[in-house]
Amino acid sequence: MRLRRRPWIITAIQEYSDVIINLNTVLTQPDWAAIFNRQAPLYLELGIGKGDFITEMALKYPENNYVGIEAQHDIIYYAARKIKEKQATNVKLLLVDAKQLAELFTPHSITGLYINFCDPWPKTRHAKRRLTFHGLFDCYREVLIPQGLLCFKTDNRDLFEFSLNEFACADIKLKNISLDLHNSAMTDNVMTEYEKKFGAMGMPIYRCEAQF
Amino acid sequence: MRLRRRPWIITAIQEYSDVIINLNTVLTQPDWAAIFNRQAPLYLELGIGKGDFITEMALKYPENNYVGIEAQHDIIYYAARKIKEKQATNVKLLLVDAKQLAELFTPHSITGLYINFCDPWPKTRHAKRRLTFHGLFDCYREVLIPQGLLCFKTDNRDLFEFSLNEFACADIKLKNISLDLHNSAMTDNVMTEYEKKFGAMGMPIYRCEAQF
Repeated sequence: MRLRRRPWIITAIQEYSDVIINLNTVLTQPDWAAIFNRQAPLYLELGIGKGDFITEMALKYPENNYVGIEAQHDIIYYAARKIKEKQATNVKLLLVDAKQLAELFTPHSITGLYINFCDPWPKTRHAKRRLTFHGLFDCYREVLIPQGLLCFKTDNRDLFEFSLNEFACADIKLKNISLDLHNSAMTDNVMTEYEKKFGAMGMPIYRCEAQF
Repeated sequence: MRLRRRPWIITAIQEYSDVIINLNTVLTQPDWAAIFNRQAPLYLELGIGKGDFITEMALKYPENNYVGIEAQHDIIYYAARKIKEKQATNVKLLLVDAKQLAELFTPHSITGLYINFCDPWPKTRHAKRRLTFHGLFDCYREVLIPQGLLCFKTDNRDLFEFSLNEFACADIKLKNISLDLHNSAMTDNVMTEYEKKFGAMGMPIYRCEAQF
């Protein structure tokens, strides 16, 4: 998701220092239990959009800790505001690129990883930039617990097809594949803001889980 | 595929005794090399429709032997007529039910198995009748060579989703998953008559390979 750049956000973002972790003050592989002030299963969302998904997940499952990673200032600001408004205390956000994962989490410390409606990078020459490109799987495997799940959703059929093939080629077990999530048996789906909008227009939403 | 029953077909079918193998005269697990009068890789199609696919495959790959299985008299008649017309000598048909596979082929004798646009049996209580129901996988594994491929095509999204999950759950490796075959990179697709008709209407065709 891209927003128009708003220069005031750089300052405004500082209001949310209890939600947005300042990377200048944390070490490599910080102690997340200390940051959350409790030991709990840790879930990670790569690319948080406006934060609807991670906020609702955090409220629905208060027994878990959630970390959201987002590379754009403009996006993280709105997500942090929502998290504060909803008083979800078990969510922290990080303004970093997904490629830095291994620097941020100790091995096998993440129970579940969410990738929702990421940039499809439709051009073949940009395939490596897709978050389901196989070149990232070693990194995901490194941070996920054994048998940990990557839950992936998209409305982009080509990206979904690419992703299924990337997982299958890498011998990563696929589970609960859905080609039309909103008309499926899944009753506990938490929607992103993008998903609410495009799902309502009748576009099929694709979902699968990849077990690392 | 279902056709209106035509009583004259029972007699007419006898004209094609060189294409349609008479099960009353063959033993369990017949010697297919003897029937084809040559040793060659053996491919099997379960449910042949009007025979376009198996005929074209046989003409395109004359180095292989093809067997088509079909449970309905009415269908097998038209397929046999087409095979004779096109002079495809490397195809034989069998009027049997797919469940009898293990009686018809010695273990690990089939190089590839094709299931094209099979009955989706949409009601959940009929799931066991779908040709990609996991209960049939032991039988497919028994007749396929090690690493043999089952190639599956359908235009039914629900059946495709079901099938992907059945294969994935059974730890059968998926390959070359396509969610829109006719707009994919696959250039050597051979179409069934059904596929030509519905593909031309712009309906997406789904395809995958399952490696047993």
